[in-house]
Amino acid sequence: MNFSADQPIGIFDSGVGGLTVVRSILQTLPQEDLIYLGDTARVPYGNRGAQTIVRYVDEAAQFLSRHQVKMILIACNTASSAADLAKLETKLGIPVLGTIEPGVHAAVHATKRGVIGVIGTMATIRSGAYPKAIQAYDPRMEVFGQACPFFVPLIEEGWTSTTDSIATETARRYLQELYQKSKEIDTLVLGCTHYPLMADVIGQVAQQIWSHPIQLVDCASTMAQAAKHKLRELARLRKAPERAASSLPLRHLSCFVTDEARVAEVGSRFLGAPLQEIKVVSIDS
Amino acid sequence: MNFSADQPIGIFDSGVGGLTVVRSILQTLPQEDLIYLGDTARVPYGNRGAQTIVRYVDEAAQFLSRHQVKMILIACNTASSAADLAKLETKLGIPVLGTIEPGVHAAVHATKRGVIGVIGTMATIRSGAYPKAIQAYDPRMEVFGQACPFFVPLIEEGWTSTTDSIATETARRYLQELYQKSKEIDTLVLGCTHYPLMADVIGQVAQQIWSHPIQLVDCASTMAQAAKHKLRELARLRKAPERAASSLPLRHLSCFVTDEARVAEVGSRFLGAPLQEIKVVSIDS
Repeated sequence: MNFSADQPIGIFDSGVGGLTVVRSILQTLPQEDLIYLGDTARVPYGNRGAQTIVRYVDEAAQFLSRHQVKMILIACNTASSAADLAKLETKLGIPVLGTIEPGVHAAVHATKRGVIGVIGTMATIRSGAYPKAIQAYDPRMEVFGQACPFFVPLIEEGWTSTTDSIATETARRYLQELYQKSKEIDTLVLGCTHYPLMADVIGQVAQQIWSHPIQLVDCASTMAQAAKHKLRELARLRKAPERAASSLPLRHLSCFVTDEARVAEVGSRFLGAPLQEIKVVSIDS
Repeated sequence: MNFSADQPIGIFDSGVGGLTVVRSILQTLPQEDLIYLGDTARVPYGNRGAQTIVRYVDEAAQFLSRHQVKMILIACNTASSAADLAKLETKLGIPVLGTIEPGVHAAVHATKRGVIGVIGTMATIRSGAYPKAIQAYDPRMEVFGQACPFFVPLIEEGWTSTTDSIATETARRYLQELYQKSKEIDTLVLGCTHYPLMADVIGQVAQQIWSHPIQLVDCASTMAQAAKHKLRELARLRKAPERAASSLPLRHLSCFVTDEARVAEVGSRFLGAPLQEIKVVSIDS
């Protein structure tokens, strides 16, 4: 693998949700340069067929590869569960990390009862990627999935406060369905990069529904940890002087999208900081 | 214009919402053959930029044109407000109808106070297409718009009953905002082909908010009426023996989509009948 420590990390998502991963990376790896690509012209992937998603991921990975990244993070659970990451890795010659594995490891270590709930988009849940990966890691685990297609629009609208009646009622409806599948769940994987923004509502409602503590596993922060681990293993951590995690403007973050509509507004909410200099590109092959 | 009465009518939408227009056409013009194209691989258009939408509409129109349609209905308000329909008409040599004009005419004739509310996606409202078209038709009209980005996912989730707390609370939140803009509105344009499925909730909540009767204008049925009018004017109404509007299976409806995920399930709800033989095609140029 012929890449150097000073090259940037590429982060890809179907839309702006992956900016929660960028936010985690800025905290965990403040010295790294980042290139973000949001395929906002074709978002959301959640309701698309598997073949379509594979093609989109391929186009995005090639775009990032042309920008000389040293690693690609697929910060989109739908894309991570549909794409063949090992194949991409071989093709591009750089490490490609998805959201699934890091969340799986964290969940298996967090659960005490061995019963894990996973929430995500329709496509992520339907793909069965989480149960497959969890049981490959530890076959004793029981896994129950619940699609929550309404969470993404809720989060993009910004209706995510724990006092918002629509947010809490929506969470209650989905988690109640999951509770009917298993009353023993003690660990809940937020299997979508949007969901960290709704973690408070999800956590509060889960606590009301199950009568024991529920551990939330956030795929954005577990992914940032996995990226750090991988780069250290390969001796490719950037050694430049550390930047303060919160220093603004974020000169070391380049942001590309395939459509500009609402990106600045919604994206800044996901990043937790103003998004500047967003470049619009075409990645269709 | 060299087209004949026996050619099919082409109906295009970004997703499955346009099937509400198909449903209206099946009622209004039961003798016509129909070709439906849903660009489900790239839905929703509502959050995309104008240039992207224009390109998508162009690709869709060319696809339908290759299928020898005698008329194209752009059954998507976002696409209708972004695209230049007159230009498309000239380019393709067949009539192209959008959703805007028919709804505008119906609204201007329905309002008694001359104050019209329009609800739609972010892109439709932001485009200003409705106020522009309404004031071009009658400059005395007052128009107030309200984006309701949450209605489409709500409808696709099937949460549209008048007893559904999330549906009614969401409608209340948006319509309350519109009420703050004008307490005089007496006519409300459902400016998105999805919305007819939520008309009961919208009508009920509007009645609670405004203290006088609110007339709803449904763009699916007004569009079907406009298509009939236009074909009669051009002497291109199909003269074949009439079919019962409800006869199943719908052999005279061909359905194409750019991605198959959930189309059969969600689409059937929009059409009000089982969707059969859905063909997946690629229309990217």
